[in-house]
Amino acid sequence: MNILIKNGTIITSSDIFDGDIYIKGEKIDGLGESINLPADEVIDAKGKYVIPGGIDVHTHFQLPVKGTVSADGFESGSRAAACGGVTTFIDFAHQVPGESPMKALDERIEEAKNDVYIDYGLHLGISDFNKNVLKEIPIYIERGVPSFKLYMIYAKEGWMSNDATIYAMLEAVREQGGLVIIHAENPYIIDMFTDRMIDEGKLDVKWHPVSRPNFVEAEAIKRALYLTEVTGSRIYIVHTSTAEGVALVAEAKGRGVMALAETCPQYLVLNDDTYLRDDGYLFLTSPPLRKVKDQLALWKGLSMGAIQVVSTDTCTFTREQKEPGKDDFTKLPGGIAGIETLIPMVHSEGVLKGRISLNQWVDLISTNPAKLFGLHPAKGTLAPGSDADIVIFDPEKKVKLLPENLHYVVDYSPYDRMTVTGWPYITMSRGKTIYRDGEFMGEKGRGKFIPRYYAD
Amino acid sequence: MNILIKNGTIITSSDIFDGDIYIKGEKIDGLGESINLPADEVIDAKGKYVIPGGIDVHTHFQLPVKGTVSADGFESGSRAAACGGVTTFIDFAHQVPGESPMKALDERIEEAKNDVYIDYGLHLGISDFNKNVLKEIPIYIERGVPSFKLYMIYAKEGWMSNDATIYAMLEAVREQGGLVIIHAENPYIIDMFTDRMIDEGKLDVKWHPVSRPNFVEAEAIKRALYLTEVTGSRIYIVHTSTAEGVALVAEAKGRGVMALAETCPQYLVLNDDTYLRDDGYLFLTSPPLRKVKDQLALWKGLSMGAIQVVSTDTCTFTREQKEPGKDDFTKLPGGIAGIETLIPMVHSEGVLKGRISLNQWVDLISTNPAKLFGLHPAKGTLAPGSDADIVIFDPEKKVKLLPENLHYVVDYSPYDRMTVTGWPYITMSRGKTIYRDGEFMGEKGRGKFIPRYYAD
Amino acid sequence: MNILIKNGTIITSSDIFDGDIYIKGEKIDGLGESINLPADEVIDAKGKYVIPGGIDVHTHFQLPVKGTVSADGFESGSRAAACGGVTTFIDFAHQVPGESPMKALDERIEEAKNDVYIDYGLHLGISDFNKNVLKEIPIYIERGVPSFKLYMIYAKEGWMSNDATIYAMLEAVREQGGLVIIHAENPYIIDMFTDRMIDEGKLDVKWHPVSRPNFVEAEAIKRALYLTEVTGSRIYIVHTSTAEGVALVAEAKGRGVMALAETCPQYLVLNDDTYLRDDGYLFLTSPPLRKVKDQLALWKGLSMGAIQVVSTDTCTFTREQKEPGKDDFTKLPGGIAGIETLIPMVHSEGVLKGRISLNQWVDLISTNPAKLFGLHPAKGTLAPGSDADIVIFDPEKKVKLLPENLHYVVDYSPYDRMTVTGWPYITMSRGKTIYRDGEFMGEKGRGKFIPRYYAD
Amino acid sequence: MNILIKNGTIITSSDIFDGDIYIKGEKIDGLGESINLPADEVIDAKGKYVIPGGIDVHTHFQLPVKGTVSADGFESGSRAAACGGVTTFIDFAHQVPGESPMKALDERIEEAKNDVYIDYGLHLGISDFNKNVLKEIPIYIERGVPSFKLYMIYAKEGWMSNDATIYAMLEAVREQGGLVIIHAENPYIIDMFTDRMIDEGKLDVKWHPVSRPNFVEAEAIKRALYLTEVTGSRIYIVHTSTAEGVALVAEAKGRGVMALAETCPQYLVLNDDTYLRDDGYLFLTSPPLRKVKDQLALWKGLSMGAIQVVSTDTCTFTREQKEPGKDDFTKLPGGIAGIETLIPMVHSEGVLKGRISLNQWVDLISTNPAKLFGLHPAKGTLAPGSDADIVIFDPEKKVKLLPENLHYVVDYSPYDRMTVTGWPYITMSRGKTIYRDGEFMGEKGRGKFIPRYYAD
Repeated sequence: MNILIKNGTIITSSDIFDGDIYIKGEKIDGLGESINLPADEVIDAKGKYVIPGGIDVHTHFQLPVKGTVSADGFESGSRAAACGGVTTFIDFAHQVPGESPMKALDERIEEAKNDVYIDYGLHLGISDFNKNVLKEIPIYIERGVPSFKLYMIYAKEGWMSNDATIYAMLEAVREQGGLVIIHAENPYIIDMFTDRMIDEGKLDVKWHPVSRPNFVEAEAIKRALYLTEVTGSRIYIVHTSTAEGVALVAEAKGRGVMALAETCPQYLVLNDDTYLRDDGYLFLTSPPLRKVKDQLALWKGLSMGAIQVVSTDTCTFTREQKEPGKDDFTKLPGGIAGIETLIPMVHSEGVLKGRISLNQWVDLISTNPAKLFGLHPAKGTLAPGSDADIVIFDPEKKVKLLPENLHYVVDYSPYDRMTVTGWPYITMSRGKTIYRDGEFMGEKGRGKFIPRYYAD
Repeated sequence: MNILIKNGTIITSSDIFDGDIYIKGEKIDGLGESINLPADEVIDAKGKYVIPGGIDVHTHFQLPVKGTVSADGFESGSRAAACGGVTTFIDFAHQVPGESPMKALDERIEEAKNDVYIDYGLHLGISDFNKNVLKEIPIYIERGVPSFKLYMIYAKEGWMSNDATIYAMLEAVREQGGLVIIHAENPYIIDMFTDRMIDEGKLDVKWHPVSRPNFVEAEAIKRALYLTEVTGSRIYIVHTSTAEGVALVAEAKGRGVMALAETCPQYLVLNDDTYLRDDGYLFLTSPPLRKVKDQLALWKGLSMGAIQVVSTDTCTFTREQKEPGKDDFTKLPGGIAGIETLIPMVHSEGVLKGRISLNQWVDLISTNPAKLFGLHPAKGTLAPGSDADIVIFDPEKKVKLLPENLHYVVDYSPYDRMTVTGWPYITMSRGKTIYRDGEFMGEKGRGKFIPRYYAD
Repeated sequence: MNILIKNGTIITSSDIFDGDIYIKGEKIDGLGESINLPADEVIDAKGKYVIPGGIDVHTHFQLPVKGTVSADGFESGSRAAACGGVTTFIDFAHQVPGESPMKALDERIEEAKNDVYIDYGLHLGISDFNKNVLKEIPIYIERGVPSFKLYMIYAKEGWMSNDATIYAMLEAVREQGGLVIIHAENPYIIDMFTDRMIDEGKLDVKWHPVSRPNFVEAEAIKRALYLTEVTGSRIYIVHTSTAEGVALVAEAKGRGVMALAETCPQYLVLNDDTYLRDDGYLFLTSPPLRKVKDQLALWKGLSMGAIQVVSTDTCTFTREQKEPGKDDFTKLPGGIAGIETLIPMVHSEGVLKGRISLNQWVDLISTNPAKLFGLHPAKGTLAPGSDADIVIFDPEKKVKLLPENLHYVVDYSPYDRMTVTGWPYITMSRGKTIYRDGEFMGEKGRGKFIPRYYAD
Repeated sequence: MNILIKNGTIITSSDIFDGDIYIKGEKIDGLGESINLPADEVIDAKGKYVIPGGIDVHTHFQLPVKGTVSADGFESGSRAAACGGVTTFIDFAHQVPGESPMKALDERIEEAKNDVYIDYGLHLGISDFNKNVLKEIPIYIERGVPSFKLYMIYAKEGWMSNDATIYAMLEAVREQGGLVIIHAENPYIIDMFTDRMIDEGKLDVKWHPVSRPNFVEAEAIKRALYLTEVTGSRIYIVHTSTAEGVALVAEAKGRGVMALAETCPQYLVLNDDTYLRDDGYLFLTSPPLRKVKDQLALWKGLSMGAIQVVSTDTCTFTREQKEPGKDDFTKLPGGIAGIETLIPMVHSEGVLKGRISLNQWVDLISTNPAKLFGLHPAKGTLAPGSDADIVIFDPEKKVKLLPENLHYVVDYSPYDRMTVTGWPYITMSRGKTIYRDGEFMGEKGRGKFIPRYYAD
């Protein structure tokens, strides 16, 4: 089956031109000023942007947390993704302490298999580092799982890595390839401040950001970057949320440290005033929403290249699931929805507000994620031979981000007071249209696990 | 006339894939996995790289210096360029003190008009800044000359700008658009050290680098960056030659300063031992060739993104022209050849030695120069609608860089002891093959002055 | 003649204790808990501080500027000094361009000789650096004039040093001993901004600070520090006025640069609102009065040790002398009075407001100046063998700083709206009481030129 | 009993002069050029230095470690101290986990009471931080124990503090007064490297430094300084041993952080080659001996003021005690002798080698320790009213640092291959001579516990 997309404004991380794309089966066959080849379907993209499908490298679908499981699983999560123009996501397989990560990996692939509408990869969450794990690293890389998530917090969940693990993993990926990705917050300080809040009866969610001040993230990022520097390795900081964090990453780059970082839409467009809403408890995430000055620093970080990726850290819990922690933020499962609104949000708040260019938009939500995580050139670009993961984006369509306009299981929207300008008209996954003008038409289980390999 | 380039490995700054390029007249019409369209000419590029034509943003053809004129003019310079895969260059129109830059610009375009084989642009060298110059900036930008060169040295030549001029120009381009590009060395310290050399009879060219130690460049870069920071403007540092310089630029980026920089092959592959050769005086340039540690820092700066461009600062003088300064470096006209060897050199010493990737290679010698200087998207990429400025590069061809293998007027080669691996097989300028397998076939005067415009 | 000061609270830069001081002739003979030795005079210092006499290392008495001469000369200047507890000052001999500094030095000593009531030293202002000056450096050091003032501004006055002179002088004092002291502002930027003010008719003195923004000082300090770093020399920055300046000096120390700095009371206690007064033009100095944030940074710099000295830069002009520039700040002779109020001001605004300790107070206005400028151990401390330059300071006496309460020739006081707490009760110069409880009793010409020598 | 010390060269941190000191009972009564007062004893100090007694703020006498107890206790330790010119030391009372620090404090005072020849104070080692400890801080400060030691390592010993404790203690002393002093090394990285050494059979003591590379200290110092910065508190880093550590402290000062630091003679004069000696295992300390470049950086740090104190970390174990760890460094009790040689060593290696001045020598080993730890003005200076803790130092006496020339219990000397120039002739503690020309004449139990109070 051949498809011809005509007359679009084709945008990659590097280029922008008006023209056509020809798709043969699952792959892009060609790009041209004007292609006149026979096609089974011709799509008119006049007045629309044609971009590579979005890639969200940070999701937590059906994740067991605090005695519950995140509401959106592989099925509804990948549906929402598709409806928002994301054609690939990377979720996590988390090692169970005491067991091999291999088991978690196999199980997670099994879990996703029949449910996903779009392609996906997995990071490996290392919870219990030991010599066996170290030895297995080449196997994970061989299997296409070359990115290893370490948590500097979450001792209770059994996920916490101490500095020795971070060091050893950084050293290992320097030798073997792969990439350490890290949740950087200081666990001891968080616990101390949380205990203070409890002691003082400050349990409303508005105290959540107070229990994790900016320096809690900054200290951990500083430490992670220093260990990266001394090992001569590379690191990827997830969900950078603070002005301090951006500056540390930028400075580290400035002295030659291979420091990579992402931020998420919630840190770019929401701030801690959100916790003052009546339903503020629904918005608890970690790191917490920050201040306006942090938002500004994050946008500048995107524009200047300090931060390479916008991902979503999607991890949803319904009102019912959040309810038990309504009056006690320490009991709240953390996380909010984001994957469906990622691409429109960065377009509307970033491009249309003059903070980033159209090329940077594509870079941040598709090309860079693809390159940094070993999906390129199959994903993340519009080039002959690449997968036909394509979004035809209507830059003028306005959508109010109410839950009823979105496709999650979760029953509220973190951005319900915002209207974005620009939304996908068509989302195509490997040559198949799975979303078109408000209608989802994906095929469950068609998504595939994508082994990821670094170029070098 | 339509041309089909088949089966090449197509490389852009972002992508790499095997496929075909279809050219219609002067422009790229399409790219595809396998294009089957009728063509007047089909070129087999199997086993070869297909890249956008090189862009050298720093040349000084037929430049009057110290009572002589640089040997390679627009004719031989653009011929050599084409033979090395460069399809666009940017030279300079230098304001004569006391006159309007407009005059210099008109004259320079006239000079080049009938001689150039390839397309070119011009920077405007500001020698005598005043309110009239300031007022004319929008006119230069309108005419497609949006980059303004300031020299922190060369008082005797009447080119020197003091800090007030730098400040005013940075401020002006922040308001009006455009870009300040700057030669950053400290004039007073150079003069002092030069006078010391003269006093001490140290006139052999080996004393030239001693008269301009690294800190002479570093001080000036530091100052230029600080003025950029306080004006909130952008700056482009030419021919960065020192480890200190790279670090300063990287650190400035790290704290949010819009700092851009280039280096040149001579600083990447030669060092000051060259001045110990019997014919060392032929190699005098400013800044001087540095130490191995500087080379390493420059390569790292390219790899990490501190430096965005490799240009050549080509400015040639024949043995005869250099002769009068043979025993007195203070009398030597400064400058060496480089435009013809730019692309092969960065490939051979950069890509093949594992210092940069193939994508970075293309970025450094074509895409970034095009973007930073307003030539993109017509130049600097391989996209439908872009000019068919294309190099088909044979990655295995070995060339010893002897003068007889090059196409300059100048009668020696700065790299005569080196052999590079990789050389253009075909160079195409706007759809016309002007070099093929050792044979130059350009048409004099076909090159055009290209007005340059910044996207924003 | 022997004097016994009884029951004072004796304060040095290091110590504080209650006790007595015994003076024999011109020198301190001993310190003790309770000294019972026969004395010609016994002074009861109960409830008072006994401190070493103040040292003001930055004065410009009877200085020719803009066609006039600063109003307070050696006579009235040293009288005012004595009345405020300053027992030593260091003024300048300024080389006349084209002449040897030696001539200026001899003449200046001659000028002061019969007029000074207290001891003094001289810095040598280098206006016209050349090889002869360089050769004479050992002679100046031998004559006790080891500190060399360079101006980065004042081209019109013929005083400006370029970077080569700064470099050469730093290098010279590294080899020969001595110290470079520097007025750090960027001349070109000042001229540019001043021209803009003139063009725009902004001639009221309130535009003076606008013509010399903070970065004008910061850029120059940065440059001076970098030249100090590359020469491995030492530098002393005069009248640091900006938060940026303090930070630069502190950071330079932090990376091992031998950076010294002073600030002045005007920058500590006045700000640029002063220029909005009806008589604001009287307060023009360079650098200009700054913002409150700069004041805070300067106080912190004193407290943390970034800045070692408070001097006054006293240079006075009467209302009549300032009058011609009343409506045009570019015509105003710059400078204000300060030497008489130095010690009370730093006590009242520093010690009493908890910003510095009593020991730091003594250090800043006596011990450090003595040590940094080669006056110690004769001056700047209370130790057996030191000169009996002593101030008995009443920490509770309140004085409103009106011109009628001061002893200058100049007919207004920059601090006329302030009242300080704490004032000298007695000032003693080499064992002789020259001021007592409001009465001046100095002997003209008793002050001596003090050759200064560095310990090493 | 009155003593007159005649004709010495009296040196304080600030001054130097030739003269006499008069002592009345336990205190200094007066200083003078020439004192003629009746005295019970007159000591001729001609040709000798008279300095305040040394203060060693870091000793571990009779400390239980790894199943043994450090060999030199209060008795022999304070005897050795006296013989080397140290008249005050500060040791530690270590909280037993689960108990109140109060108990440890009471017991430690009891232990020392009858054994000490010289005055001493105690730091409180916090091992088990909790709310009770926090509440008791004002009590410790009230009792004259205002300095609280935290260990970032030593988990097995139960001493380790995590970041929350460090934060809380920094915050507490900011509010209450007092000072946090910290052993900064990263525990997890040390354990990891030590395990690697064990795995690889690298148990010779030469592997000890390999198990604790410089960055292990640097990371911890960086973290401690950042917590100090965010709390706006003060910190004192003990036994700084690395070039990185010095730079971090200096930089922190440079940006306004109240960072204090000490180093020890072992880091100044020994390096890790020592571990290659046959008896290298005797020299194990933590942090380990470092490289020559670290020594140079530490000396520069002393000279520039980055480091304020030289202490000794004296903690001795006999050959017999070290024997069990002879072939396995992980079993070695760590620590070496130093208190007796402190003052001569810093004189001989520092002053005589031109690295620091005589005033700095006194500052580093007496005045600064006294001021930073609340002993001043009773200790650390030579001023009327201060304790007559005085050393008359013969600057020319040469002593080879063999065990037989020293007064420890421990049976080897870490400096046995060195000869110092300069040694105490007399040591006086509160007016009583306890050491004279090789003969120790202290009175056991005469030393007193000195409550320490900060001035502010």
